[in-house]
Amino acid sequence: MFGKVTVIGMGLVGSSVARVILKKRLAKTLVAADADRDVCKVVHDLGLAHQVTDNLTEAVEGADLIMIAVPVGAMRKVAERIAPALKQGSIVTDTGSVKMAVIEAIKPFCRPGIEFVPGHPIAGTEFSGPEAGFDTLFDNRWCVLTPLPDTGIRAVEKVTKLWEECGAMIEIMDPAHHDLVLGITSHLPHLIAYTIVGTATELEDDIKSEVIKFSASGFRDFTRIAASDPVMWRDIFLNNKAAVLEVLQRFSEDLTALQKAIRQGNGEYLYDVFTKTRAIRKQIVEQGQAE
Amino acid sequence: MFGKVTVIGMGLVGSSVARVILKKRLAKTLVAADADRDVCKVVHDLGLAHQVTDNLTEAVEGADLIMIAVPVGAMRKVAERIAPALKQGSIVTDTGSVKMAVIEAIKPFCRPGIEFVPGHPIAGTEFSGPEAGFDTLFDNRWCVLTPLPDTGIRAVEKVTKLWEECGAMIEIMDPAHHDLVLGITSHLPHLIAYTIVGTATELEDDIKSEVIKFSASGFRDFTRIAASDPVMWRDIFLNNKAAVLEVLQRFSEDLTALQKAIRQGNGEYLYDVFTKTRAIRKQIVEQGQAE
Repeated sequence: MFGKVTVIGMGLVGSSVARVILKKRLAKTLVAADADRDVCKVVHDLGLAHQVTDNLTEAVEGADLIMIAVPVGAMRKVAERIAPALKQGSIVTDTGSVKMAVIEAIKPFCRPGIEFVPGHPIAGTEFSGPEAGFDTLFDNRWCVLTPLPDTGIRAVEKVTKLWEECGAMIEIMDPAHHDLVLGITSHLPHLIAYTIVGTATELEDDIKSEVIKFSASGFRDFTRIAASDPVMWRDIFLNNKAAVLEVLQRFSEDLTALQKAIRQGNGEYLYDVFTKTRAIRKQIVEQGQAE
Repeated sequence: MFGKVTVIGMGLVGSSVARVILKKRLAKTLVAADADRDVCKVVHDLGLAHQVTDNLTEAVEGADLIMIAVPVGAMRKVAERIAPALKQGSIVTDTGSVKMAVIEAIKPFCRPGIEFVPGHPIAGTEFSGPEAGFDTLFDNRWCVLTPLPDTGIRAVEKVTKLWEECGAMIEIMDPAHHDLVLGITSHLPHLIAYTIVGTATELEDDIKSEVIKFSASGFRDFTRIAASDPVMWRDIFLNNKAAVLEVLQRFSEDLTALQKAIRQGNGEYLYDVFTKTRAIRKQIVEQGQAE
């Protein structure tokens, strides 16, 4: 499918893509690049690519497809570093969880003749690093592409094919709209989970140990989400500020209303909200997204 | 183990206990009681008890153990109804998720010679009703008992044995302390999940359909929790008001601090919080409560 493919950033997502590319022989040459030498060593030992390097310029030379899979806050630096070495006609894509900020970070470094296809595979676990990847991570998961007005259709098709080979389903979306939708479905839930588990970290030691012991009653689900990669998520919140603050405002208003209902003993209000939310779950189950 | 056992309230928890009692023949006679005739019919058709009735007085006559497994808000009415028919020397226990309010609701109706052992099996799913129960619901889950100063040790032992037969591990706790710990590990997470999913229900239709479509990225976990039984949870919040409002206050302060960090672009603060929360998950995994 490709001659030379370079994956930059060998974390959970990058290393999972690399595993698929190797397994399905989607590229003649697969180069894995990571700025962290320890990561490079692990990637090399695991045999996740034909070549492993911490030299980004070398890594992208002659590459037909370059996938940047680093935390959102590191995208600009990577794009700047690789820009001079990019082959005319090559395709750059990324896996960032935020699209507006990533487009701003990468697009200026893509000279005419370099195609840029912003992308976001909606898949992950609470684990991170090259050991955490696996080749079925993207099975039946959505991958959102947010091509720009000047992105060539052939480039979009090629990136689409790659993700489909990874098992993903493709959705084309406007980048600002992506950031709002993901702000609600992903960024806000993570922020809330981080908050509630963070609140627990500040409890007195005796209560904290009991909170861990009896975590099975709801809290445990939050701790899984709140165990996600701290750098990745710091960058998401710093780079999707507007959408996150907007949905957080709505959330806070709704929480205040529930708080007031509890204080006033307004059972009818509580019952109404809790019944509506059950209906949303039903729709997700009906669409085959949960059981 | 028991002569006659009566389970009042054949929802997820009550029907699961009934399944274990029948399967392991823990009682000579198992009576299932529910105020809802439709529920009684389902329980009868599923064969979950030796006798099924909507007459609570009849149900408890001559019973050695009575387990009240109704929503917290219905406990007082049930206790009042059954009180005159309780056999001298019988044991009353409950499964309420709140203990202080339930003790206040039931205790006044236990005349001398009736033992009351307040209990709370920390187990459940987002499904409800007698069809949702299953006999392994309590396997390796905690069941908290909060005996009163005048509760006889033999009664506590008998209730302990029953829960252990159900597969549960027993923890003895002060009722007020139970309400605070569960306020953090269970009630607050549910309130937050209800809020965030509730916020989504008020979105414009086009965004709402996308939120459901891309729910896999964190939101989905919240919808599972927010699909829990509305009556049960309304009653929990109305009956554990003080503890819930207390932990909610701490949560709101922490959320405001994170919001401010996002607005100000304070990446260091975000990184610190996200790193601490990861450590809590690690402890839960180390204690074998998660993978």
